[in-house]
Amino acid sequence: MSEARETTTGAAAASHNDMANAIRALAMDAVQAAKSGHPGMPMGMADVATVLFRDALSFDAADPNWANRDRFVLSAGHGSMLLYSLLYLTGYPGIEIDDLKNFRQLDSKTAGHPEYGHAPGIETTTGPLGQGIANAVGMALAERMQNARLGNDLVDHYTYVIAGDGCLMEGISHEAISLAGHLGLGKLIVLFDDNNISIDGPTSLSVSDDQVARFKASGWNTLAIDGHDPKAIADALAKARADSSKPWLIACKTTIGYGAPTKAGKSSTHGEPLGDEEIKGTREKLGWSAPPFVIPENVLNAWRAVGSKGAKAHADWQKRLDAAGAEAAVALSVPAGASRKDDVAKAIAAAKQAFAADETKRATRVWSQQVLEHVTPALPELIGGSADLSPSNGTRTKHHTPIAPGDFSGNYIHYGVREHGMAAAMNGLALSGNFIPYGGTFLVFTDYCRPSIRLSALMRQRVIYVMTHDSIGLGEDGPTHQPVEHVAALRSIPHLMVMRPADAQETAECWEIALKTADRPSILALSRQAVENLRPNASPENLSERGAYVLREAEDERDVTLIGTGSELSLAVAAAEALAKDGIRAAVVSMPSMELFREQDADYRAKVLGTAPRVAVEAGVAQGWHEWIGENGRFIGMSDFGASAPAGQLYKKFGITAEAVADAARAIVKK
Amino acid sequence: MSEARETTTGAAAASHNDMANAIRALAMDAVQAAKSGHPGMPMGMADVATVLFRDALSFDAADPNWANRDRFVLSAGHGSMLLYSLLYLTGYPGIEIDDLKNFRQLDSKTAGHPEYGHAPGIETTTGPLGQGIANAVGMALAERMQNARLGNDLVDHYTYVIAGDGCLMEGISHEAISLAGHLGLGKLIVLFDDNNISIDGPTSLSVSDDQVARFKASGWNTLAIDGHDPKAIADALAKARADSSKPWLIACKTTIGYGAPTKAGKSSTHGEPLGDEEIKGTREKLGWSAPPFVIPENVLNAWRAVGSKGAKAHADWQKRLDAAGAEAAVALSVPAGASRKDDVAKAIAAAKQAFAADETKRATRVWSQQVLEHVTPALPELIGGSADLSPSNGTRTKHHTPIAPGDFSGNYIHYGVREHGMAAAMNGLALSGNFIPYGGTFLVFTDYCRPSIRLSALMRQRVIYVMTHDSIGLGEDGPTHQPVEHVAALRSIPHLMVMRPADAQETAECWEIALKTADRPSILALSRQAVENLRPNASPENLSERGAYVLREAEDERDVTLIGTGSELSLAVAAAEALAKDGIRAAVVSMPSMELFREQDADYRAKVLGTAPRVAVEAGVAQGWHEWIGENGRFIGMSDFGASAPAGQLYKKFGITAEAVADAARAIVKK
Repeated sequence: MSEARETTTGAAAASHNDMANAIRALAMDAVQAAKSGHPGMPMGMADVATVLFRDALSFDAADPNWANRDRFVLSAGHGSMLLYSLLYLTGYPGIEIDDLKNFRQLDSKTAGHPEYGHAPGIETTTGPLGQGIANAVGMALAERMQNARLGNDLVDHYTYVIAGDGCLMEGISHEAISLAGHLGLGKLIVLFDDNNISIDGPTSLSVSDDQVARFKASGWNTLAIDGHDPKAIADALAKARADSSKPWLIACKTTIGYGAPTKAGKSSTHGEPLGDEEIKGTREKLGWSAPPFVIPENVLNAWRAVGSKGAKAHADWQKRLDAAGAEAAVALSVPAGASRKDDVAKAIAAAKQAFAADETKRATRVWSQQVLEHVTPALPELIGGSADLSPSNGTRTKHHTPIAPGDFSGNYIHYGVREHGMAAAMNGLALSGNFIPYGGTFLVFTDYCRPSIRLSALMRQRVIYVMTHDSIGLGEDGPTHQPVEHVAALRSIPHLMVMRPADAQETAECWEIALKTADRPSILALSRQAVENLRPNASPENLSERGAYVLREAEDERDVTLIGTGSELSLAVAAAEALAKDGIRAAVVSMPSMELFREQDADYRAKVLGTAPRVAVEAGVAQGWHEWIGENGRFIGMSDFGASAPAGQLYKKFGITAEAVADAARAIVKK
Repeated sequence: MSEARETTTGAAAASHNDMANAIRALAMDAVQAAKSGHPGMPMGMADVATVLFRDALSFDAADPNWANRDRFVLSAGHGSMLLYSLLYLTGYPGIEIDDLKNFRQLDSKTAGHPEYGHAPGIETTTGPLGQGIANAVGMALAERMQNARLGNDLVDHYTYVIAGDGCLMEGISHEAISLAGHLGLGKLIVLFDDNNISIDGPTSLSVSDDQVARFKASGWNTLAIDGHDPKAIADALAKARADSSKPWLIACKTTIGYGAPTKAGKSSTHGEPLGDEEIKGTREKLGWSAPPFVIPENVLNAWRAVGSKGAKAHADWQKRLDAAGAEAAVALSVPAGASRKDDVAKAIAAAKQAFAADETKRATRVWSQQVLEHVTPALPELIGGSADLSPSNGTRTKHHTPIAPGDFSGNYIHYGVREHGMAAAMNGLALSGNFIPYGGTFLVFTDYCRPSIRLSALMRQRVIYVMTHDSIGLGEDGPTHQPVEHVAALRSIPHLMVMRPADAQETAECWEIALKTADRPSILALSRQAVENLRPNASPENLSERGAYVLREAEDERDVTLIGTGSELSLAVAAAEALAKDGIRAAVVSMPSMELFREQDADYRAKVLGTAPRVAVEAGVAQGWHEWIGENGRFIGMSDFGASAPAGQLYKKFGITAEAVADAARAIVKK
């Protein structure tokens, strides 16, 4: 273990080591105070982070939202004290030493892992490994796309990532690295904390990859350096910044828990406090005599100078923006598309009118594609894409031009067979503030990107998942491709809007909801197979917005309420018609979104659900439906995996038919 | 596009081209008949598959379950007609030409994607991309582990995989490749269908990886060949088989839809029938004059000779097995551990006794670890592991020795930070027939391996997921690490047993259920934090086995039933005690598994649930609970993501307390 070399910053009378040791001390002391956390990574990467923030990162701590700031993503989110230390040291607004003392405490800004929105300067929520590096691909892509639209004067920044062994072992890292290499995102710079330690012990227990060779194989530039040598770090960063032909991996050989006298280089520094004795020894070894949470004035001054070094660049940029005119201001406004609301509303209205005039039976995925034909020209911030299922998902329109290596002027991304990487990149695109990303795959493959969908919801990002082939209705591809439990499983995620439109009108309405709700992600669950046009007229009102509504009221008092979603709503309608012949008065309720319906007031909900017994039909599992049908209600749906056969035969095989709905109603009607 | 070269097999008067074209014809004709499917891949890989089956694969079609057969995994499962053609041509029992004619039809053996159990010779269910290659890692690992236990005479076989661009773009492929390279699984041979075509168009739209360099970086041997040159294929396979120092990638440059006159090499051959005209042209181009589903006798004979070429090796092996004694027979018996039932029952009983004598409060993850201390010596087939969270998951015991590169004699796998790769490898270990794999990570990271968990359930494999830190009770790590929706989301998967034990006794019982249920996977959701010992005595009966049971009956008729799971069951007990002071008679029901409870007869369920109003408590979302509490019941749990703070404070913050349970009960008791 080599000691970090002494270098002094020109700006202030504090050495590199003092500045790096400030991070180490804050990290070990905060973890100790919390009796919980991860000191090893911040201590190991303190040298790299110090040089990065001091010499490379273009930012202005006074304005964490400056659009042209460099992005810094701590993909190894467990090392959150590294980030919090930097936010405090460089003087981010509202981050005080008390916030570090409250690390991991209730309602603190300094959560166990960096939580987007909890403190300024946290660009994305990290902790689930590999997500940060994949978000960063989206951020770096957003930068290139904005650059193509607005030019170098307004958009020209880097995206830096610190990633650990864990991030690089996760599969999502492959998808991210491969996509970034393909697109040649040359302003993406990944600093790999190559410390050879994992929780179970040395990484040699489980991994032998040559990471440098691996990144090279995916089209990256690479460097390997001593992560405790400030000059090597500075040189590497300078080299990487000077050549934006390809993304950069800088593998930094470090010692986890650097400075700890007996624990440095060991797993024991990874995820638990060092303990008082070891902390005392670390202070001695590092020559850091300040008490816990005290940063000597010269060191703090040096760090604060780093925090304000970008102020001039920021001010110059602001002048250029002010001079650039309204178009640029709109493109950089947050939330994205805020000024296009009327245009989007008009496009949706036009789509609804056009659909009402079209009596063809189509799949909701096809109606969705037609919605996009209307909306895409009205909303340049909208960025389409698919995980290699463009023709199936209907995600691409005639208004789309693909993004390609070297050409970022388009508005459509071929994400490849990378559902997880796509979802995480979409989080990054949304976090950039200036784009509204949507991406498609089959609904069953939400399983492949679920960790990133969850983070869309946790971070409250407007990411729109266009998930087609949403039931056994996809037919012959069979159970591996037939979502049965997925709609239910997605409905369990807080804040996520799961919408399963039933026809053309609802598809347009659900798209409208997804686009206008800036603080929530959406899942659009769309059919492969053609559906009935149940609403022949275009209502000016968005009926789907309340989550459920009465599609057909019963003549006179209801005997039964039939509830359906998506492609099965037509079965409820057919059942109601059959029941009417028996003199049973059935209302039909369409419920495109349970979440939105649950959020309505009790009166509205009671009115829609009624007091008559209820039958629900959906080609998925029953889970979640008892909330709406009650203990004595009936559910017609799936209780097992699907099968491979033409769709019509599967609906019969699994008993999801209008007759079954009618029979269930007959069985519970109180007559 | 080069024509495949003529070579004749020694065994029968049919040329290589005839044999390969038989596959091509069956594939294009079956897809055409089904009006659905993927002809391009089988046509492109027909040459590779022909040489593989003819020259390399050791198998005996007459006995698809021969333990020492080479495994063949079609990771690119959409090319299912390649596999079905081979099964028919080589004469697997019960696979007739009519089965190919029924491709993708209801109840056929030939589902859209290969479904394990639907036909002999399907080693694993594939279709979701990347799963097959990751299953194969588990299979190849199982082979090495059995080899270490039983020796070369009884266990010595290869695992072959055909994977496509899609498989290699998926993140799971990285986890699989990295783990296989680390462990040096030299008898794993991957044939990459390098056809440069994806659904959206040429792969150049989305991927630029140098796959050969990528595999090399992960410690693989590599070769790149013309996938239409039979000699090159044969030579490559011979070379790979001769050197088992590292796993092998053989990149086979192929033309998708090989032989199709206008569509070969295009996306249009990937996922739809070629059409009658193109099929006619293909027949002409290939010189294949036989009508659909007719294989000329000489060609079929040649293929059937391939199917029986392994009969002698099989018979010789059987003699060695017969001579090897009872120990080997037990180790190779299916299902794994069948003869250890009594030993396992005794180990569980001993654990329950020991736990009853131990009044210490411990986390259920710790009780789980102690169960494993008892069970591991009794069940050598049980293979432990963790995705780099061994100390946290409590998956490792003093009876464990890790598997390491070059030493496969152990019984514990350090899977690394590869949840998805772990789960898929466990599927492969289970499918090998001779092992019972369990693996740990945090419950929240079931999201990272959900596609493989789903396949455990779809394939009905006994894979045991030890998922700890199962609620906000994990505390400071915060919402990224706190499962809130995961128990519900897992309960939505058919056939999966989700078990959330409440104390030491239940933890032992849930392990017993997981171990003895050979045809279902299990999730054990275990607490980070210590729980009360609610059952101080060791009951000989497994009370958890019926999914729910009355833990404390009310004195006299119930006023209310309180239902709890896991770490919250103690809150229900405390609430019942508080209610008793108010004269309210509350029964407490423990519900470790909703699935198992749902499967009980109606009488038992009615008896447990009672007719009094019900309150449920679980530190997760409400979804799914209305089935048990009814429309007027109350649920105490989570409705949002968690937060970062000490666990006790979080339970208070989110209102999950005994007082809240008691208050909810008071509000609904009919008094």
